[in-house]
Amino acid sequence: MVLRLSHRIIRDARATSHLFLAARALGADGVIYTGQRDRTIEATIHEVTKAWGGHFDVTYQPKAAGVLKEWKTGGGDLIHLSMYGLPLQNVVDAIRTSPADKLIVVGGAKVPRLVYDEADWNVAVTSQPHSEISAVSLFLHELFRGQELSKPFEDAELTIMPQVRGKKILRRSGSGGGRDTRHDGSV
Amino acid sequence: MVLRLSHRIIRDARATSHLFLAARALGADGVIYTGQRDRTIEATIHEVTKAWGGHFDVTYQPKAAGVLKEWKTGGGDLIHLSMYGLPLQNVVDAIRTSPADKLIVVGGAKVPRLVYDEADWNVAVTSQPHSEISAVSLFLHELFRGQELSKPFEDAELTIMPQVRGKKILRRSGSGGGRDTRHDGSV
Repeated sequence: MVLRLSHRIIRDARATSHLFLAARALGADGVIYTGQRDRTIEATIHEVTKAWGGHFDVTYQPKAAGVLKEWKTGGGDLIHLSMYGLPLQNVVDAIRTSPADKLIVVGGAKVPRLVYDEADWNVAVTSQPHSEISAVSLFLHELFRGQELSKPFEDAELTIMPQVRGKKILRRSGSGGGRDTRHDGSV
Repeated sequence: MVLRLSHRIIRDARATSHLFLAARALGADGVIYTGQRDRTIEATIHEVTKAWGGHFDVTYQPKAAGVLKEWKTGGGDLIHLSMYGLPLQNVVDAIRTSPADKLIVVGGAKVPRLVYDEADWNVAVTSQPHSEISAVSLFLHELFRGQELSKPFEDAELTIMPQVRGKKILRRSGSGGGRDTRHDGSV
């Protein structure tokens, strides 16, 4: 699960959408976000999941502190991605070893000190300024050892057949109910 | 080098900034972009590079077709990232084997057919919709086999010392000229 802190409806709309879609595509099972509630983004992510398959939850919570506390009480690991933390390549093996459910936390304009303190791991995906979208993507890729790249997405209405050039999309006929033999369910 | 197609000043400002910063952090030597010229983004990237070190070029070109043609004439490889292409994990070894300079192309609202046709490789970082920021990051990470995560950035004014918790930034005294023994140049 990925936690996005302090979403702002207008300023962050596209960055948060990209973040959620990247989390979904790279194997996270859902996202939680705090800040301003944004029903447009929620609808977008639900539509993408309906069309492209799999299961992916989007949950709004008003307060980050509550989410962190509940996660830790439930025995989960908190992983905060920040350019100030320990290098990904040095810690990812240890993180992967823990069997606990993982909450991957990213800012947010200004991340409260609480997040650094409560995190089981503060992890830097490089110590350079870049993007929480990139950081989450690389973290998931390393966590899953690249296996996420071939993750199947069940019950997709749309499935791409990889091509050397151009585009090929298989569309399940009667989407929402029927089945089509052209659709083989694999991606 | 990363080529960003069809930048739009207002709508794409943050996504393009994230893309350029991720490309820089993950070892690309520069970016070219088409669409609308955006001097604000150029200034931002130059400021980040000045502060955080290394070399990174940002170049505007009005026409994608000209960039592609020039790149191919110069003997470089064109790699177009698109959800419709061949899976990254199946082709990255072959791409890495080629010694030619690489231009990694990402859209852009609508990518012209020309890009698919001219590309030496159309590569899918998953066949799911997500983010060009994520796609470029994962592509670079695989291309460089993760070595980019420990890339040094020379002549930085600011350098982070990775911490278990909290933030530690080393600032070179008299930035722009002087040297400080606290600054060891490594990241």
